[in-house]
Amino acid sequence: MTLTPPAAGVRTLADPDTPFAVVDVHKALRNIERLARRADRLGVALRPHVKTAKSLDVAALMHDGTHCPVTVSTLAEAEAFADGGYTDITYAVGIARHKMPRVTALLRRGVTLRVLLDSVEQAVFVADAARETGLAVPAQIEIDCDGHRGGLGPDAPDLVRAGRILHDAGCLDGVLTHAGESYFAHSPKERRLAAENERDTAVAAAGTLRAAGLPVRTVSVGSTPTAHAAEDLTGVTELRAGNYVFFDLVMAGLGVCGIDDLALSVVVTVIGHRPEYGWILTDGGWMAMSRDRGTAAQPRDQGYGLVTDLEGNVLPGLVMSAASQEHGTLTARDGADLPDLPIGTRLRILPNHACATAAQHRGYHVVDSAWPTGPAPVVQADWKRITGW
Amino acid sequence: MTLTPPAAGVRTLADPDTPFAVVDVHKALRNIERLARRADRLGVALRPHVKTAKSLDVAALMHDGTHCPVTVSTLAEAEAFADGGYTDITYAVGIARHKMPRVTALLRRGVTLRVLLDSVEQAVFVADAARETGLAVPAQIEIDCDGHRGGLGPDAPDLVRAGRILHDAGCLDGVLTHAGESYFAHSPKERRLAAENERDTAVAAAGTLRAAGLPVRTVSVGSTPTAHAAEDLTGVTELRAGNYVFFDLVMAGLGVCGIDDLALSVVVTVIGHRPEYGWILTDGGWMAMSRDRGTAAQPRDQGYGLVTDLEGNVLPGLVMSAASQEHGTLTARDGADLPDLPIGTRLRILPNHACATAAQHRGYHVVDSAWPTGPAPVVQADWKRITGW
Repeated sequence: MTLTPPAAGVRTLADPDTPFAVVDVHKALRNIERLARRADRLGVALRPHVKTAKSLDVAALMHDGTHCPVTVSTLAEAEAFADGGYTDITYAVGIARHKMPRVTALLRRGVTLRVLLDSVEQAVFVADAARETGLAVPAQIEIDCDGHRGGLGPDAPDLVRAGRILHDAGCLDGVLTHAGESYFAHSPKERRLAAENERDTAVAAAGTLRAAGLPVRTVSVGSTPTAHAAEDLTGVTELRAGNYVFFDLVMAGLGVCGIDDLALSVVVTVIGHRPEYGWILTDGGWMAMSRDRGTAAQPRDQGYGLVTDLEGNVLPGLVMSAASQEHGTLTARDGADLPDLPIGTRLRILPNHACATAAQHRGYHVVDSAWPTGPAPVVQADWKRITGW
Repeated sequence: MTLTPPAAGVRTLADPDTPFAVVDVHKALRNIERLARRADRLGVALRPHVKTAKSLDVAALMHDGTHCPVTVSTLAEAEAFADGGYTDITYAVGIARHKMPRVTALLRRGVTLRVLLDSVEQAVFVADAARETGLAVPAQIEIDCDGHRGGLGPDAPDLVRAGRILHDAGCLDGVLTHAGESYFAHSPKERRLAAENERDTAVAAAGTLRAAGLPVRTVSVGSTPTAHAAEDLTGVTELRAGNYVFFDLVMAGLGVCGIDDLALSVVVTVIGHRPEYGWILTDGGWMAMSRDRGTAAQPRDQGYGLVTDLEGNVLPGLVMSAASQEHGTLTARDGADLPDLPIGTRLRILPNHACATAAQHRGYHVVDSAWPTGPAPVVQADWKRITGW
């Protein structure tokens, strides 16, 4: 193909001040389509978790104008997605009583906002709020499938107790589980087993409730690793995943994706050299990348990130090995020579953990690698992130 | 003293939705006064680094209306402080050529914005910018005193070369060094030696330039640990430090401050219990605390933070041991019993690294522990943070 230089007025990745976050929309779309096809094949609805990108524009890539069901990690996301026309939202963090007025305000706006809980005490205050407001507050009971975080066991006595309290107030929607330990499942087989366990646990919990005469509508499972490994989701009604839109080095390290699938990166500028130490210094430190070092727990530690040129081609053997607030240090490894990257060179850093790196930025500059535009890709759009709680 | 309940309309830390960041202005002022007294005694000007709080309100605590000299880590901070009336600003990250238009725009506004560099190449483009714009761009040469990050050695040939290029363009202001390795100096003696080395290196670099006939105005040193350890700063003109305003568990672990000096915390709410694992779950995860685990490298690993009640009293033996995006896990250690903290209980978490935790928030709710107002301290003010680059 013939490359033409960008027209006057067109911005490229060489233009904005560094550091800044970039989304490659081509890779994001490819990742989205991959999981959408899987969900279709498995016969379950997909409810993307929007906590990674926190962007209405990224979420819009997932559907064709009919706002899809989404999962959120904060009420600020729920409110922003409601403002954007989304009406089917699950807030997948255990509910606190003081948050109920924000929940019921969204329900009054016609948004089906589902809340999550794993105790009788929470069920009581959710049911109370429903009675006080006259609004059915759809609630899901969190089920623990792998000892990762919150949740009740699938046959815990409190499951039926909480379910009955919710049901009596017209609030019981279903059960939800998250195979958080699958982020440490390093083989396809381990991830398949994690997906089977996630499904089995959720279906068993739904069975416990149904056996007690309590109707269960939603049986929700998901994590990015298990969503890409599940082979049979019989009994499950919906699949959640979030990180998969961008993917990251942790997911690549597990084998859930390849390095070439990573849709989020951070553009930095070389600001110095310390040849005596083998260091190249950049203006992108942990403020731009986050302090997340997720790959430190993997067989291949990728430091604070891998390095690509501005077009996205990986520079082999180069790693961002250290970070202070606004400084990054790049070093060679695996016997590679330190490349000649003069002061002023712009690079992209692929992050350990997309959720954490994205959170360091107020928005994204968007490029589309399906239409290569030369060494400095053209910025096609600027997308904002939702911040705060 | 007699406590009266807050008047109607008065907000307390029990009111805002969690998680949120809190600054105790009493502790911040105490920390500020402590270092101000030291700088006075040492006979040097203090140039606080505002990268920790990134707040005009916090900076205002440091002076009495006459805007003090400040250090910044981004041009966004420089621009915001210029908007706030500050006219003496050092941008202490190696300058990139593409940032020069923002630098010269600030100089044109009458702000003395000093830039930092450690190469002949940077000196050339700074001198070029000065000639092209007719503006003297005050520049400091970064000196490496401990192999921490950037900088030239105090007798590097490039020091005089860069100095001469700057001087010939009317830009040479001085030298700057930062004892970054002092964050790993665990005894008062090590920190005193680090401070002496920082001073000696900076003064030697100034001497190298002066011996070459190049005038040096500013000899700038500083880091929070060395600023609190220096006993003699002969030859130094100014002292920089930033973290000291809030302090954090890393600084307390080194012994630079006590736990009671920590002025920044994050308020979270208990949202669940897993008694079988000994876990209390909160709604404050790494999004609220950051992924910084600075104390992991110290003798006493404080997890993601220590836990206090809403008034600020440390709950002994309790630590935030794990974090996901919006979940925190509290566990007991040192043989302590897990306290009874019902769902809905609000707690404060003291962070590893104030710079990183503060960066996760858009602003601070401010309390004043000099005027105790009961178990839920009154919110005296809301202060905004500067974001982006």
